[in-house]
Amino acid sequence: MSQTNSAWGGRFSEATDAFVAEFTASIGFDQRLYRQDIEGSIAHATMLAECGVLTDEEKNAIVQGLNEVKDDIEQGRQQWSVALEDVHMNVEAALTAKIGSVGKKLHTGRSRNDQIATDIRLYLRDNIDHLSAELTRLQLALIELAKGEADTIMPGFTHLQTAQPVTFGHHLLAWNEMLQRDYERLQDCRKRVNIMPLGAAALAGTTYPINRARTAELLGFDRPSTNSLDSVSDRDFGIEFTHAGALIMMHLSRMSEELVLWASAQFDFIDLPDRFCTGSSIMPQKKNPDVPELVRGKSGRVYGHLISLLTLMKSQPLAYNKDNQEDKEPLFDTIDTLAGSLRAFADMVPHIQAKKDSMRVAAAKGYSTATDLADYLVKKGLPFRDAHEVVGASVAFGIEQKKDLAELSLTELQNFSDLISEDVFDVLTLEGSVAARDHIGGTAPSQVRKACETALTLVKSRTA
Amino acid sequence: MSQTNSAWGGRFSEATDAFVAEFTASIGFDQRLYRQDIEGSIAHATMLAECGVLTDEEKNAIVQGLNEVKDDIEQGRQQWSVALEDVHMNVEAALTAKIGSVGKKLHTGRSRNDQIATDIRLYLRDNIDHLSAELTRLQLALIELAKGEADTIMPGFTHLQTAQPVTFGHHLLAWNEMLQRDYERLQDCRKRVNIMPLGAAALAGTTYPINRARTAELLGFDRPSTNSLDSVSDRDFGIEFTHAGALIMMHLSRMSEELVLWASAQFDFIDLPDRFCTGSSIMPQKKNPDVPELVRGKSGRVYGHLISLLTLMKSQPLAYNKDNQEDKEPLFDTIDTLAGSLRAFADMVPHIQAKKDSMRVAAAKGYSTATDLADYLVKKGLPFRDAHEVVGASVAFGIEQKKDLAELSLTELQNFSDLISEDVFDVLTLEGSVAARDHIGGTAPSQVRKACETALTLVKSRTA
Amino acid sequence: MSQTNSAWGGRFSEATDAFVAEFTASIGFDQRLYRQDIEGSIAHATMLAECGVLTDEEKNAIVQGLNEVKDDIEQGRQQWSVALEDVHMNVEAALTAKIGSVGKKLHTGRSRNDQIATDIRLYLRDNIDHLSAELTRLQLALIELAKGEADTIMPGFTHLQTAQPVTFGHHLLAWNEMLQRDYERLQDCRKRVNIMPLGAAALAGTTYPINRARTAELLGFDRPSTNSLDSVSDRDFGIEFTHAGALIMMHLSRMSEELVLWASAQFDFIDLPDRFCTGSSIMPQKKNPDVPELVRGKSGRVYGHLISLLTLMKSQPLAYNKDNQEDKEPLFDTIDTLAGSLRAFADMVPHIQAKKDSMRVAAAKGYSTATDLADYLVKKGLPFRDAHEVVGASVAFGIEQKKDLAELSLTELQNFSDLISEDVFDVLTLEGSVAARDHIGGTAPSQVRKACETALTLVKSRTA
Amino acid sequence: MSQTNSAWGGRFSEATDAFVAEFTASIGFDQRLYRQDIEGSIAHATMLAECGVLTDEEKNAIVQGLNEVKDDIEQGRQQWSVALEDVHMNVEAALTAKIGSVGKKLHTGRSRNDQIATDIRLYLRDNIDHLSAELTRLQLALIELAKGEADTIMPGFTHLQTAQPVTFGHHLLAWNEMLQRDYERLQDCRKRVNIMPLGAAALAGTTYPINRARTAELLGFDRPSTNSLDSVSDRDFGIEFTHAGALIMMHLSRMSEELVLWASAQFDFIDLPDRFCTGSSIMPQKKNPDVPELVRGKSGRVYGHLISLLTLMKSQPLAYNKDNQEDKEPLFDTIDTLAGSLRAFADMVPHIQAKKDSMRVAAAKGYSTATDLADYLVKKGLPFRDAHEVVGASVAFGIEQKKDLAELSLTELQNFSDLISEDVFDVLTLEGSVAARDHIGGTAPSQVRKACETALTLVKSRTA
Repeated sequence: MSQTNSAWGGRFSEATDAFVAEFTASIGFDQRLYRQDIEGSIAHATMLAECGVLTDEEKNAIVQGLNEVKDDIEQGRQQWSVALEDVHMNVEAALTAKIGSVGKKLHTGRSRNDQIATDIRLYLRDNIDHLSAELTRLQLALIELAKGEADTIMPGFTHLQTAQPVTFGHHLLAWNEMLQRDYERLQDCRKRVNIMPLGAAALAGTTYPINRARTAELLGFDRPSTNSLDSVSDRDFGIEFTHAGALIMMHLSRMSEELVLWASAQFDFIDLPDRFCTGSSIMPQKKNPDVPELVRGKSGRVYGHLISLLTLMKSQPLAYNKDNQEDKEPLFDTIDTLAGSLRAFADMVPHIQAKKDSMRVAAAKGYSTATDLADYLVKKGLPFRDAHEVVGASVAFGIEQKKDLAELSLTELQNFSDLISEDVFDVLTLEGSVAARDHIGGTAPSQVRKACETALTLVKSRTA
Repeated sequence: MSQTNSAWGGRFSEATDAFVAEFTASIGFDQRLYRQDIEGSIAHATMLAECGVLTDEEKNAIVQGLNEVKDDIEQGRQQWSVALEDVHMNVEAALTAKIGSVGKKLHTGRSRNDQIATDIRLYLRDNIDHLSAELTRLQLALIELAKGEADTIMPGFTHLQTAQPVTFGHHLLAWNEMLQRDYERLQDCRKRVNIMPLGAAALAGTTYPINRARTAELLGFDRPSTNSLDSVSDRDFGIEFTHAGALIMMHLSRMSEELVLWASAQFDFIDLPDRFCTGSSIMPQKKNPDVPELVRGKSGRVYGHLISLLTLMKSQPLAYNKDNQEDKEPLFDTIDTLAGSLRAFADMVPHIQAKKDSMRVAAAKGYSTATDLADYLVKKGLPFRDAHEVVGASVAFGIEQKKDLAELSLTELQNFSDLISEDVFDVLTLEGSVAARDHIGGTAPSQVRKACETALTLVKSRTA
Repeated sequence: MSQTNSAWGGRFSEATDAFVAEFTASIGFDQRLYRQDIEGSIAHATMLAECGVLTDEEKNAIVQGLNEVKDDIEQGRQQWSVALEDVHMNVEAALTAKIGSVGKKLHTGRSRNDQIATDIRLYLRDNIDHLSAELTRLQLALIELAKGEADTIMPGFTHLQTAQPVTFGHHLLAWNEMLQRDYERLQDCRKRVNIMPLGAAALAGTTYPINRARTAELLGFDRPSTNSLDSVSDRDFGIEFTHAGALIMMHLSRMSEELVLWASAQFDFIDLPDRFCTGSSIMPQKKNPDVPELVRGKSGRVYGHLISLLTLMKSQPLAYNKDNQEDKEPLFDTIDTLAGSLRAFADMVPHIQAKKDSMRVAAAKGYSTATDLADYLVKKGLPFRDAHEVVGASVAFGIEQKKDLAELSLTELQNFSDLISEDVFDVLTLEGSVAARDHIGGTAPSQVRKACETALTLVKSRTA
Repeated sequence: MSQTNSAWGGRFSEATDAFVAEFTASIGFDQRLYRQDIEGSIAHATMLAECGVLTDEEKNAIVQGLNEVKDDIEQGRQQWSVALEDVHMNVEAALTAKIGSVGKKLHTGRSRNDQIATDIRLYLRDNIDHLSAELTRLQLALIELAKGEADTIMPGFTHLQTAQPVTFGHHLLAWNEMLQRDYERLQDCRKRVNIMPLGAAALAGTTYPINRARTAELLGFDRPSTNSLDSVSDRDFGIEFTHAGALIMMHLSRMSEELVLWASAQFDFIDLPDRFCTGSSIMPQKKNPDVPELVRGKSGRVYGHLISLLTLMKSQPLAYNKDNQEDKEPLFDTIDTLAGSLRAFADMVPHIQAKKDSMRVAAAKGYSTATDLADYLVKKGLPFRDAHEVVGASVAFGIEQKKDLAELSLTELQNFSDLISEDVFDVLTLEGSVAARDHIGGTAPSQVRKACETALTLVKSRTA
């Protein structure tokens, strides 16, 4: 016969249109799954042999042949063919070319529908583990840096206006908290990734006496999936992963924004090493914080992939539809973007140089201890709202006089409340202000040091 | 003084512009949080009294006052004021109007930044519990319906083409699997919601000797948050919830698509009761499946809210920025959309009527047992790929002859392979086909019944 | 009979479920369209009378009745009913209550499917005109401000690093360019909005001898639509509008980001009037740039609505489906968000105060005239790439010496190139730098002034 | 010196980190712009020579060198280098290698910031023209097919329920309307793409006596841009294009949904040629409508890119930031997706085979002429609402009797209204029903034929 495709050509009366073949083929991107595809096939063949569907000789031939195919691919000897559509048929054809007719038995009791779902889950599981390790590396770098900056005072901002003094170590630990949640979300996602669809076949299960629990065990899956129709049509795990990735990128975009601000001449809070920056083709003086800028921009990419996948699945009737072929590229690019961005950050963070003097000068301006003055008045008996009003008026006076609160004289301050006495100047210092926030989660240096220890213990306790 | 706003007017030299006041006020939508706001304030005051920051008398006055305010709101006696900006200041003003100056002490040691974060988390926790219960109700309805339809044969589709026969019960359990994952995701999300930001104050913690663990205990939180800067700027929990909601709506859109298809004259697989349908103002014969259509459309809404929140947080520097006021409406509408859609489905599902004859006729067409024939040949010794080729040719012949496989004569079938004998007609029946897929996750009626039991046990074991 | 719904109840055997009625009703939000609904009905009745389908008496009764209904609504006398589902049936019922059986003739030759499409288009057209006027107002404010700041020198940034000096007026005109494109996009969108679907009836057209061109003329539409199936299922115009809105919000988010930066203590480039700012409930010194922050956050909202609508329409088969009811809320909220944000900006912009000294000091730092030095060398004969290298080395030396380029001595500069002579200091001044960029689009004050005039002429030539 | 990068290394004290170099390089994807980059450079050099900034000899050397570089690239002789970051520096380095020091003069008066903006605009303009031609090809195919099917009756659906008979030609013209709007949107977008940023240099313009109008003319741009800061930071045109692309994909997803439905055994309205379909690796009987399914899935991709770009630009301060490097891949993939999907559809549409008998049988069921009966009663004097009620009751009776309206006897019909007489059966025929909708946009065959002519004239009048 003249059909183009040996996997399904039997009932077709004409060959696939050449452009359609290319347009619908996935081999251009799914070859990336070859390792998982072969790993899955070896486990499948092993189980089939144990269940008596294949003989041991057949199984051995298949396993050895698959290992050779894998070797060919890794040595660059594999010729990928668009006519063979995808990684599954390419691998099977290469196998059959090597071991002959026995290779045609491998597809017994399975379909490409459950096979691809298995491949992606294996691939995603591996990458979740890699990304988790990169998150861990970045968190350790942040905690280490925070420990060294537990006493470094900088202005804390709300609305990008000077709010209250905080320590730089405290700020870095806020970043660590974001990543800690990201890590936990990835682990939660992994639970739902690590379930085996193999055995669902096309959509209804198979007529062969298979042992799905055994295949799951061989592949390190927690369990076989529960429903065959769902197994071939579910892509939740990919969306959930991309969502976890979108949050990671969102967090990195927030850190990036701050790094870019801090590296500006106006803030001048940090220095980034030259090797993490690039210059300008026209302006010879430029040193641009390219890494954080680029990572900030890459957040859009992963947000986009999330929408891409959600759109893909909207309104799809069961079970498998060709639409689902579109699940892979967004997923792969999300993995690559996360891996690159996390690596760049984990490499860069240890080399961030705090410009302590500059931070301190900024913290001392902008009436950053005004809340401390209000709290002082409250402790002297004024209700908080009234204290707030008194301090507001003092600040307005200070702005007029171009003096910060600590620069006003006692007499000037007493004009606003006679509860103020000499001891007020203690609470108006930066050190006094940060040290006073001495509770779990507060910015006091002692709390920051404790928080570093707790965070370190938590991160180090990870198995992954 | 002439400032408009008693909460912060001290340093301002002119009143807020009227349109700006309205444009920036959140009271229009955040009044929905009044219960959680008051609950949080009562716990805060209780803790402050235990720590000696308030006297017991002050605390008692505040608690009683707040309960009265709550009562006023629930009886419709509260006048919400745009000039007071938000639910927090409205409640506080109402409290102070009731109990006088003592009310002004309530805001000691906290800020609206940690207060709103606490309110939303409490509100979201409550709603996650409600939505989880609705999910449970819908899952129970599906499992119940599946149990009754474990033997009902319908065509299983891939690419919306007839693929293999499945049972209707099996299909319904595929839906249940989607919702099972949704339930688990909501519980995972709840862990990260149920952490208390209170005590972070504006961003740096507070100078009062507070006991955050105690407030957390009073409010049923698992623990206080770890970092004050993160506490006031984190909205991950809202995004994660909206993502879980987007997946729920995606699943409902898939079920809806199938219900709409099945209710069409062309499929004619089910009947929906009149009370879940509506008609047309122009076409008197119409009975439209409005509920699934509308729910399918509502998926867009929650997808949109997810993007809205992700966009909101992109590149935001720490700590709190006014941008974050925009977190509430998408969250509230997501909750409402989920609650309505799940309720509509949970109400409707028990009344879906399967048209069994129509399903069976459809399953018997379209060469749905072709895979069974291939498997039959494999069991007679042909490699699967070769068997596939043989059956493909038989199907092509059948199409030409306008006969299904079971309608071909033995002689006709034997033209394609001499491995075929009289027993072939057993595997070509619908009952034989479904019964043969007899493993975990397969569509065999016995498996479907077992799967119903397992699912039921799992759902009934829920505490929430 | 006992059906709940007089518009379509004929063939139904049971009343709609109460929750379903509420869940599927749109009257809660589509009542906002009452004016357009009535306007459309009046034109429809007028055309029907002209074509002989209604008598003049009938038409007159209907028109008068509708005007009374409109009056009732505007005076708050209308009782909206969920049982009547939507604005159309509510208005028709009110009409029939007023004028009796004749009211039942209004729906001749139309359906709610073409009616709602008409209402939304009319509503959107009105709002595009309003938003265009607000854009114009904001552009005029920007151009006016730019004119006054044509000579004000500030640092231009790339990568948020000081790049080259620019004028503040030039920067403001960059904002104006964004809005100019927004205006043009709205007008392009309006062309596709202003087409009349009425006459498409349910989906296939109507059997009455209608004159669609006449109705279009009466309603100010450019023309009737071309295909009835498309007319009732097309929502492109709403998506296109929301996209235009997303770009407007994106632009406002960029302006907002810059206003927030410039209002920070670190940049200190501008002052915003107190009446456009708010304070903090805990920190008495705070003056927060709430308006730009909130507008920046609102970008997420419109991005979300865009995705909501795109998702809604994905994969919808023709013609009308109930899903489409979900088109209205995102559209309405987009309109409201744009109207509020543009108004807030148009009100605020004239009151932005440039802090010229602070801008100038910043511009003089950061080697902002390095490119000018390179250009100087090129003009003396060095290829640009070599000149870039020379200046790069001078800047590295300057950083080491803590001197800006203009602060280096001639001898120091000559160490890097013997092409440098005394005249170099002219090109290193800020005034020299900006004045030298004297071509269309350049930052030279003379160009900025010209650009203001051109922009003003363009904006003033608008008819809308 | 030892810096890695000859374009900007002068002020740097250490080489770029190897991973950072790779992570931040764009050459992997922007090499696709080489043709536009060289075209732009040739125009730039030509203008510089005309303005006296380059000598004619220098210009000639540059132009010839660039043409050789282009030839090298197209012959596969160019070695792209990551160390050279992007297409601009790679091309410039290749030029300098060929023509020596003169090549270093090419970058005079420009920056990569305006250069990349120019390249993308040129690239996008070319691709808009290609996509417009593909749209035209698809529209012509649809109109042609519609012409041949102007009399083919099929059921028109609303809510996927049989609504009224329409003609297949009419339905195809509804698709054409969608694409007509897409074409117009692309042309509107092209106006805003075809504006030249070159001359903006880094952000402020340049000090050389350039002639921007001349460069614009040489490159076929409508005009130079108006503001240099805006020129290098504007990416609106890319977003607007991606939005236009998202609508095209949405439309194709709607057509795809219908093709998939129609190709199902349940609808059985059309046949797609084997060469546009593929089979199953497990189910030998399958013939899957892969092309429409895949295109439907690809809608998610472009929706995602739209969000990606909108996210990218949110809150970006002026002028150029490294984030913007992320604009290219979404844009390129949008172009590729559109080109492939439109090509696949334009190739496939002419070969769609309508199964007329099957369509007709479906149209005759489901009380599709109920509206005609109502209109009949209205013409006999009954108000429309009352007529609707009467017909609703007849339909309920028909359902009970399992008869369509045309199958009820005159006596049975007269039970519901004595206005009914023998002539009623004329309006209950399918032909009568479609022929009666005889106005602009209606489904009457004569109207469909006229609409085909109008559409054809419109499409053929295109210059692009």
